[in-house]
Amino acid sequence: MLKANQNYLKLPGSYLFSTIAKKVASYKEANPDRTVISLGIGDVTQPLSPAIIKSLHDAVDEMGAKETFKGYAPDLGYDFLRKAIAENDYKKRGCDIAEDEIFVSDGAKSDSGNIQEIFDENCKIAVCDPVYPVYVDSNVMAGRTGTYDADSERWSDVIYMPCTAENNFVPDFPEKTPDIIYICSPNNPTGTAMSKADLQKWVDYAREHGSVIIYDAAYEAYISEDDVPHSIYECSGARTCAIEIHSFSKNAGFTGTRLGYTVVPKDLKDAEGTALHGLWARRHGTKFNGAPYIQQKAGAAVYTPEGQAEIKALVSYYMENAKTIKDGLKDAGYTVYGGVNAPYIWLATPDNMKSWDFFDRLLQDANVVGTPGSGFGPSGEGYFRLTAFGTHENTIEAMRRIKEL
Amino acid sequence: MLKANQNYLKLPGSYLFSTIAKKVASYKEANPDRTVISLGIGDVTQPLSPAIIKSLHDAVDEMGAKETFKGYAPDLGYDFLRKAIAENDYKKRGCDIAEDEIFVSDGAKSDSGNIQEIFDENCKIAVCDPVYPVYVDSNVMAGRTGTYDADSERWSDVIYMPCTAENNFVPDFPEKTPDIIYICSPNNPTGTAMSKADLQKWVDYAREHGSVIIYDAAYEAYISEDDVPHSIYECSGARTCAIEIHSFSKNAGFTGTRLGYTVVPKDLKDAEGTALHGLWARRHGTKFNGAPYIQQKAGAAVYTPEGQAEIKALVSYYMENAKTIKDGLKDAGYTVYGGVNAPYIWLATPDNMKSWDFFDRLLQDANVVGTPGSGFGPSGEGYFRLTAFGTHENTIEAMRRIKEL
Repeated sequence: MLKANQNYLKLPGSYLFSTIAKKVASYKEANPDRTVISLGIGDVTQPLSPAIIKSLHDAVDEMGAKETFKGYAPDLGYDFLRKAIAENDYKKRGCDIAEDEIFVSDGAKSDSGNIQEIFDENCKIAVCDPVYPVYVDSNVMAGRTGTYDADSERWSDVIYMPCTAENNFVPDFPEKTPDIIYICSPNNPTGTAMSKADLQKWVDYAREHGSVIIYDAAYEAYISEDDVPHSIYECSGARTCAIEIHSFSKNAGFTGTRLGYTVVPKDLKDAEGTALHGLWARRHGTKFNGAPYIQQKAGAAVYTPEGQAEIKALVSYYMENAKTIKDGLKDAGYTVYGGVNAPYIWLATPDNMKSWDFFDRLLQDANVVGTPGSGFGPSGEGYFRLTAFGTHENTIEAMRRIKEL
Repeated sequence: MLKANQNYLKLPGSYLFSTIAKKVASYKEANPDRTVISLGIGDVTQPLSPAIIKSLHDAVDEMGAKETFKGYAPDLGYDFLRKAIAENDYKKRGCDIAEDEIFVSDGAKSDSGNIQEIFDENCKIAVCDPVYPVYVDSNVMAGRTGTYDADSERWSDVIYMPCTAENNFVPDFPEKTPDIIYICSPNNPTGTAMSKADLQKWVDYAREHGSVIIYDAAYEAYISEDDVPHSIYECSGARTCAIEIHSFSKNAGFTGTRLGYTVVPKDLKDAEGTALHGLWARRHGTKFNGAPYIQQKAGAAVYTPEGQAEIKALVSYYMENAKTIKDGLKDAGYTVYGGVNAPYIWLATPDNMKSWDFFDRLLQDANVVGTPGSGFGPSGEGYFRLTAFGTHENTIEAMRRIKEL
């Protein structure tokens, strides 16, 4: 009997950002004269920089000439890119990661959604609350999360680790022992980042308990403080307990260009001694056909001196927005977090207003779109996320409107 | 306890083409003076055509300018591309497929590997034997295939449908009723294609038995005969029982560029009435972040008058190779199939030689690489696949060498 994957049917409602998009579209349709500014979804607004554009054009030309045309890419990525990543993102930081432990992909979202697949369906996951919805939803689809309780907005088999102002947004060790621990730092949505000392404690915890940490480092380029690690492999022992996911979306503006990578060290093994590196390689080889040559060349350009200078400028541009938002909200009397090592500002809603109520108020009265904290999990209730990815002009205008609320 | 996905560990050996690549690399290392010609893997060799290249350059320029920069693409694909697909691949052929039933992706391999995920883990699959390995392997990874018997090279819970010269490579209806039926036509690896009448029988069978057909149409552009359907939706009733997967790799040479699409009609429902369209949309929204804008623009260029003329020329180029191979092999006394509606030639090995023995002989004595039929399944034993994707020069030279064997 043909039967749909029943786990999919357990998923409540639609994907957070689809819901926001629908609300905004509906508001715009009803109010065509208003200019709505979005500081909601984490999408960038600045164009790709000159070194990247040049590299894309060059790669396109190669694809158009018989002598230089490229067919199927190596499943795991071109050597030239994996070498640049190993050298710049790891060796230069004193991390021991080999080129063949790096798997190039079409982006961090795909990887963070697919990575759970290499684990047994009975493994228990732990996530921060609030959290990037993909970690939980992809595990729901795999049948790993038990049943959903609409009142508590929680899954019976998921271990939640609340991250609120009370614990400085650093998760405490959970009561139950998880097999798979998702950590995103600098964090989406709270905009805060774990210090190296805090992350080392988590690495030690994972090693002690035989857990794996799925470390989402998508916002690494925004780190401005010295004691915040750029990679989990800066922590001692992480090679045996951590997978790291990287994006080119937020440092180099590849949200619509698509490129990312994931590191699975060969020392990472399950309780029975099975190395997970081979499983991820098999997944890539069977269900993926490599990232496009054109994009991989653009990724390599990110690591050239010109590319590095340009993406630093891009990050600075957005972090100036972060400062504008943070200062603006403080001036307006809000309590704010994040925005120092991450492009996200996490604010406490005024008067304990519900997150979605604040969303509606901001949309209707200030024509500014943000993301309700509760959309990221129950502990996000009472918080709200604004992103630094707008233009300077829009960000300044959004702050002016919010101050007038 | 951290545990790897045990289903992955059931997979025997490595991916077919990795094994071939290793054998070839080892031969080349031992014989550096020999020129090896590959007619093995289904990778194209001709560069992207001018209309595609222009479109790629234009899209890159758009990504470099503030006014035209594109961030996250719509999860399911840009409207301009879905519209071009609906118009050209469906409406023009009299097929009733709406734009929002088309899901743009990074390629047919990803889609054909991931599509099984929207079905229940207890659904039984049926595959042709020989078969493109991804259909089976992706179901092994999902735990849907039972146990593997190395002697028969078969999975206990997979329904195999032998396709050999005896049934003209058209599968007979199986004894057990499958829930999910994989059909690839024109076929990889046999190079043969189902007539519309044959395919209509399968559509009728699927409707009668409540099964779904996963129809892989990756080689559709190579069809030269009038009675071979370009889409399963040319068959009556297919909207309620078929998913169709398309590639831009083989018609437009996108193997290293990456673009494809899958059609899930809204009328397709499981036995309990759950529409599968929503599940695939949810998968795209959660575990994928859209195909790159640059590639989608290139995909749209395929449907322009210039693009259509150019891809026809590209297909003709490869089909001239198919004729060279087919005629060459016939002259040399081989029994050959395929090569008329597909870029694959399927030959019976001489003297009932084992497929891998013939592979070794061809590599060592003719320095030509092909693909052993048994690599696609036990019924492929005694057959061998050559592809038409080489250059004219290499294809002619390969035939010269094979004739001298």
